[in-house]
Amino acid sequence: MLAMENYRLFLALLVFAFAVGFVSVVFVVRWVLHFREGLGWDGGAAEFNWHPLLVVIGFIFLQGIAIVVYRLPWTWKCSKLMMKFIHAGLNVLAFILAAISLVAVFDFHNTQNIPNMYSLHSWVGLTAVILYSLQIVLGIGIYLLPISPVHLRAVFMPIHVYSGLFIFTSVIAAALMGITEKLIFGLKDPKYKDSPPEATFVNVLGLLISVFGGLILWIATRPSWKRPNEQLLRSQLNSADTAMSERPDLEPNSDTRGKNGKM
Amino acid sequence: MLAMENYRLFLALLVFAFAVGFVSVVFVVRWVLHFREGLGWDGGAAEFNWHPLLVVIGFIFLQGIAIVVYRLPWTWKCSKLMMKFIHAGLNVLAFILAAISLVAVFDFHNTQNIPNMYSLHSWVGLTAVILYSLQIVLGIGIYLLPISPVHLRAVFMPIHVYSGLFIFTSVIAAALMGITEKLIFGLKDPKYKDSPPEATFVNVLGLLISVFGGLILWIATRPSWKRPNEQLLRSQLNSADTAMSERPDLEPNSDTRGKNGKM
Repeated sequence: MLAMENYRLFLALLVFAFAVGFVSVVFVVRWVLHFREGLGWDGGAAEFNWHPLLVVIGFIFLQGIAIVVYRLPWTWKCSKLMMKFIHAGLNVLAFILAAISLVAVFDFHNTQNIPNMYSLHSWVGLTAVILYSLQIVLGIGIYLLPISPVHLRAVFMPIHVYSGLFIFTSVIAAALMGITEKLIFGLKDPKYKDSPPEATFVNVLGLLISVFGGLILWIATRPSWKRPNEQLLRSQLNSADTAMSERPDLEPNSDTRGKNGKM
Repeated sequence: MLAMENYRLFLALLVFAFAVGFVSVVFVVRWVLHFREGLGWDGGAAEFNWHPLLVVIGFIFLQGIAIVVYRLPWTWKCSKLMMKFIHAGLNVLAFILAAISLVAVFDFHNTQNIPNMYSLHSWVGLTAVILYSLQIVLGIGIYLLPISPVHLRAVFMPIHVYSGLFIFTSVIAAALMGITEKLIFGLKDPKYKDSPPEATFVNVLGLLISVFGGLILWIATRPSWKRPNEQLLRSQLNSADTAMSERPDLEPNSDTRGKNGKM
């Protein structure tokens, strides 16, 4: 019974997280199309607007989904390898969108004669992109290349998990700074401090992104919501159809999981 | 041997985290005294300066220490109750400093006719202060009042731990937005985008705060660095003097700890 309640709570939080992430994307689309200058690739404001749009869609929403993709109970019948490809694929896609979003803002700055890389936002944001590329390269090298030893996979797993969550959190912090900058620079009459509708709307976007981050971090750090290891999963699939509802009881010690086999 | 290496790594990271936190405090002191108008309580810029100073000292540095205080191996001989008082005391002190820092900025805004609570920084920051007060009241009610049932303590522990880390992270995100705002509003000629020495200096403060946060989160989330539960600790203290170096092996399943006894 507790397991079933736990599963329902998991599903409710997952749906809520996806909904909040999706509404964040809707908010950033409305921000650039309705309140700002729309989208374009002309070195002007419309080119800059790709920056927040692609960051929220890719670097925040897609990365958040990539983080919790192993947690989805209906994927536990899929092979671990396939799930790894989905996890890696979503992260690579998020990285490509983040890279394009950087090109947009550098191109905008260069065209407008605005210096690059002077702000704390840019320092934290670029650091996050560099760490993200390193995370992806190391992740693929260690967990997808068949030559990497099982021992290395186990030892590196806590670092891989922590780095992923740290980078995700840093991206959200950078996004909140970016929102702050854009509302100060972009709103002139009325100003940010006069709280025009755009200011309130984009502040709410900032809160939505923060709540999305908080939900993804909660889901990702619940030990009982982890994908069961391969051996337990196989015996479970052979014995019962009630796998999902009973699943949280299957894994008595999730901390030792990494040492039992390939990850 | 692995246990000893693990302990040395823990100590090295702890010393590094404290050093980074301490240097952050030195940086914010230098910022307000050397680059800004110093400290005062006159409704002007010198009163505002208490805001970043007290946030970095209390809400970031002291809260960070409060989070990892149970992890210090030389405190494992102290009673759990005493450590709870130290944990609660540091958090209450951090809260008082955060509250004074809020009074300073509201008083400054009111004197200068600047609106309050219009920015995303203020929304995230005030939310963090309100959640922090709730966290402290619930923490004391559940873990320090002797009447609260053991079952409640166990069930609430994952929420208490997660909320603590989430609030700590939100405070750092709010601080990074605050730095962004202050450098944009405070630097006029040269401006933030011209990268005067103050801009670079305070950007580095932002990075230091982020690194401090990352280190505290790493230390707090390593299962093998947790304080052993009371029973294991007692048998350990009775049997050997090598307690600290061997300690990470004592706790085979840290996830079930909460269910074994009072926390």
